[in-house]
Amino acid sequence: MTSTATDSAPPAPGTRRPGGRTARTRAAVRDAVLSGLADHGYPGLTVEYVADHSGVHKTTLYRRWGGLEGLVADALDMAGEDSWVPPDTGSLEGDLRELAHEVVDSFSDSAAASAPTAFVAAAFQSERAAQALHAFYAERFTRCTAVVARAVERGEADTDIDAEAVVRAVSAPLLLRVFITREPIDAALADQSAAAALAATHAGAYNRR
Amino acid sequence: MTSTATDSAPPAPGTRRPGGRTARTRAAVRDAVLSGLADHGYPGLTVEYVADHSGVHKTTLYRRWGGLEGLVADALDMAGEDSWVPPDTGSLEGDLRELAHEVVDSFSDSAAASAPTAFVAAAFQSERAAQALHAFYAERFTRCTAVVARAVERGEADTDIDAEAVVRAVSAPLLLRVFITREPIDAALADQSAAAALAATHAGAYNRR
Repeated sequence: MTSTATDSAPPAPGTRRPGGRTARTRAAVRDAVLSGLADHGYPGLTVEYVADHSGVHKTTLYRRWGGLEGLVADALDMAGEDSWVPPDTGSLEGDLRELAHEVVDSFSDSAAASAPTAFVAAAFQSERAAQALHAFYAERFTRCTAVVARAVERGEADTDIDAEAVVRAVSAPLLLRVFITREPIDAALADQSAAAALAATHAGAYNRR
Repeated sequence: MTSTATDSAPPAPGTRRPGGRTARTRAAVRDAVLSGLADHGYPGLTVEYVADHSGVHKTTLYRRWGGLEGLVADALDMAGEDSWVPPDTGSLEGDLRELAHEVVDSFSDSAAASAPTAFVAAAFQSERAAQALHAFYAERFTRCTAVVARAVERGEADTDIDAEAVVRAVSAPLLLRVFITREPIDAALADQSAAAALAATHAGAYNRR
């Protein structure tokens, strides 16, 4: 699908757009969605709020995003369109520890935590947000598997290792505490989670059989 | 605090009540809350709905539970008041595997999964539900640590092991998929999660230092 960077072009969620007016509009709308989710949560978010806070007319929002679910899903798509790459410290131990610390750091202040928290909450209310959240995490964890692929190349992990499971294992105890059990997380917990995933990797617990 | 089992007695969330009319009322109200959460989610649940589906008058619900947040929190308290005990298979490996399989089984059909899912979702909307969810999981995981305590007695784990971390590690990758990334879970994933937690335990990754 080709699209031109004009204001009337349909959005192309999940694809990168060139800079320009449409990209700026999309970013302004995304910012308004995030602030609305942070302030009111998904049940309290309205298209009117997004229009007021983005300066984009309500009819444009409906035409290009379809409505609230489309707005939230596109904000999640944009969150996945960053250039983040996983750490490359030279060892699996260092990379897993760094990954775990990045999770802890990203939730260390409530302002930074509000967007991901709002997305996880919205996924319980909207099937389309749930699909976008699934796609976001699937892509993010797949990016993380680069650290396991390099470990395999260095002979630190077995060639038949389930790399997707390893990187999820590092984050899982941290995200469990943030989003479900609502317990604090800290650097010591990040170290513990990374050490456990490393030990399980070395013991072959993630190898496919 | 003493209380008599009459309909006008204040509820005592988190404590077991004797059978009788109040316990039956509380259970009927809990069932109505669960079906309402399953059907409409927290944002769609109303005290009217609970009154209609429990047969308990709205004014009684307000007087005894304070309102919607209190109703949801008490339903969560009741969920934690069961007699469930963790498995005791004779080995840490067997116990962790059994724990993981119980998680998978509890989400294997959508009817069984609807109540826990609704509680996790409600915690994003209500501070009181969040506190009740935190208390539920804290108590549940503490119950699970019996399997680690027995492993320590058998010499399968170190005496300074962080037992709370071990039992959370078994569930975390499964609950991550159910509630956050929305990926399927199955028996193979349960085995993998248990095997990883066991290997990390044996390697000392959960030992306090």
